Amino acid sequence: MIALEHRNLKAPAALRELQTPCLLLDETKMNRNLARLDGHLRQFEVGFRPHLKTAKSIEVASRMMRSPAGPATVSTLAEAEAFAGVGVADILYAVGIAPGKLQRVLALRRRGVELSIILDSIEQAREVAKASREAGMPLPVLVEIDSDGHRAGVRPDDPLLFEIAAILDGQGARLEGVLTHAGGSYDLVGKAALERAAEEERLAVVTAAKRLRAAGHACPVVSVGSTPTAHFARSLEGVTEVRAGVFVFFDLVMAGVGVCAIDDIALSVLATVIGLNRDSGRVFVDAGWMALSRDRGTASQDVDHGYGLVCDAAGRPFPDLIVSQANQEHGVLTLRPKSGARLPDLPIGAQVRILPNHACATAAQHSAYHVIDANGSVDKVWPRISGW
Amino acid sequence: MIALEHRNLKAPAALRELQTPCLLLDETKMNRNLARLDGHLRQFEVGFRPHLKTAKSIEVASRMMRSPAGPATVSTLAEAEAFAGVGVADILYAVGIAPGKLQRVLALRRRGVELSIILDSIEQAREVAKASREAGMPLPVLVEIDSDGHRAGVRPDDPLLFEIAAILDGQGARLEGVLTHAGGSYDLVGKAALERAAEEERLAVVTAAKRLRAAGHACPVVSVGSTPTAHFARSLEGVTEVRAGVFVFFDLVMAGVGVCAIDDIALSVLATVIGLNRDSGRVFVDAGWMALSRDRGTASQDVDHGYGLVCDAAGRPFPDLIVSQANQEHGVLTLRPKSGARLPDLPIGAQVRILPNHACATAAQHSAYHVIDANGSVDKVWPRISGW
Repeated sequence: MIALEHRNLKAPAALRELQTPCLLLDETKMNRNLARLDGHLRQFEVGFRPHLKTAKSIEVASRMMRSPAGPATVSTLAEAEAFAGVGVADILYAVGIAPGKLQRVLALRRRGVELSIILDSIEQAREVAKASREAGMPLPVLVEIDSDGHRAGVRPDDPLLFEIAAILDGQGARLEGVLTHAGGSYDLVGKAALERAAEEERLAVVTAAKRLRAAGHACPVVSVGSTPTAHFARSLEGVTEVRAGVFVFFDLVMAGVGVCAIDDIALSVLATVIGLNRDSGRVFVDAGWMALSRDRGTASQDVDHGYGLVCDAAGRPFPDLIVSQANQEHGVLTLRPKSGARLPDLPIGAQVRILPNHACATAAQHSAYHVIDANGSVDKVWPRISGW
Repeated sequence: MIALEHRNLKAPAALRELQTPCLLLDETKMNRNLARLDGHLRQFEVGFRPHLKTAKSIEVASRMMRSPAGPATVSTLAEAEAFAGVGVADILYAVGIAPGKLQRVLALRRRGVELSIILDSIEQAREVAKASREAGMPLPVLVEIDSDGHRAGVRPDDPLLFEIAAILDGQGARLEGVLTHAGGSYDLVGKAALERAAEEERLAVVTAAKRLRAAGHACPVVSVGSTPTAHFARSLEGVTEVRAGVFVFFDLVMAGVGVCAIDDIALSVLATVIGLNRDSGRVFVDAGWMALSRDRGTASQDVDHGYGLVCDAAGRPFPDLIVSQANQEHGVLTLRPKSGARLPDLPIGAQVRILPNHACATAAQHSAYHVIDANGSVDKVWPRISGW
């Protein structure tokens, strides 16, 4: 299954000093991932508003954004507040707004942060317009468009779009534009399918913007985004900005979709062997779901990696060795069913690295990244933002 | 599916002031759960060493333990260090020891903590004996016994048991006893099956202890434990202590196993409605897998609760309403397939409570508990211990 050659090498000395389990970030691979999407997007005249929810790290964010002030996308107001605190000044909070969160949105705007929000209902539009009037501060809003039936949003041909726009622009808020997220692209595989998804995503949101403009709304922002479609868009005509997040680390799900190679995955969990049962072909490590997350995103893909693909301490995958079972603090490593590979020699105390199914979910189980720089040193620790 | 009556009531005023998503703990239900297991175990002459890994909270631990000094079980050394810091002095670290963690174990013992460890291999026994000799401090060890093929451990009839014991007692460490965890009981349903599992768990570890004593080892500790078997044990003859953890909160998986009722579940995630699609019967809330975890433990049970069972803000389950899909910060509520129930009226801004599949996993997504006391007040916040 995994074609890379494996040689048993000792773990780099520095890794041996880390307490396991812990989260490792390969800075070289991260930089390569950043350069790749940047190169792809530079061929279009389009803005880039990276999603900071995967990394939730000030250090990683500073490498993802085109300028220290943004633009940026976040998934929680806790992220918005933390990034605003270090000078990010153009932030999109891309989860449908709850009325109870509007006071925090207003507080950030009063601090000078150009924070915009999203919604897809008349009820939310009314609440936002009311809060805008009461604060004497028109809140900028993107209307979420449903481009693939995946999640929330208004269909581009739904008359509801005009009702929402009329409330926003007429009652004190400000319709800033339209936004969509082709979340359905995570279920696709390969170039042709992803190119089609990217074009459908673009068409949905450009259509919505055109209809709104025809109805007299300025609608300056047309925002699309998902890691698969961002990498496979062939046209971004009419789109003003692209969002993407998980590409910074990539993961096994993205490899299964065909957006990256396994060798591009920059994130892994360092674990230690704590048990071995040769009869049953099981190796036990000190990373269970608490360190790996319960995400089983590859279960529905062609190649199921269990709770993660196991590599040696230098990051090279062992042929067919996966985390097949996860308890709270135990992971059980076994060869894939029907694998012809041999169980590698993993004595008690040996370190392994486990590649994640879903980088967002695995990273969320940890409070910091241990960063492996280009020299193989791991002396940098980058904390993560948590909570809501 | 859910027999409880539902009436649309307003959320208690205090809950409205919380930012969502957040973790709620019903103190009354927790106390009831604690009293129930205490009552069951008091009929036996057996010690109780609660597992603190579910709650990871000093305040909850103080209510679970029989004395402020313990005994207690933990799943990470970070927990051991935190609980030692508030006076817990008798702690079992119940994950197979990694040689790289022995210095932290020794440091805790030097602080006067009676910390014991577990292992199941000759290699670990040698490392522990060596560290004991070098520190001039015999580390007390429980040998993990495999009672049901679920995870790690030595079979009670395996000669390996004597080899490990001989190394520990002969080379500088100390064989303190034997321990098992009937993790397989999580896959069972109902009283008869759980009573059998409890008896198999007891027999495995009592047999191992007898064999060790016959070979000349003192083996004073005989430790069993899992929430299902702890509640259904009919005999604990030969057992010196029982461990259990998730019973303090309970969850949907435990309800599916038949250890508790849904009404016993003390933990929930408070969320806010942020969208509604009547045509597709979907309600969107601001709690996705980041707040709920990716745990799908009920997927293999008779009643699949998706990512959680949805209740009104007062904690009463809506008939057949579950979290059927979870993105990072969005949960999608739908009625179960083929349900005859009506989608409840959940306007934008309404609060709901979501009961967890697996309390350990859901609690781990949060940094604190918002505690609802017997008066319905939610002004207590109990922080959680995190990391390793």
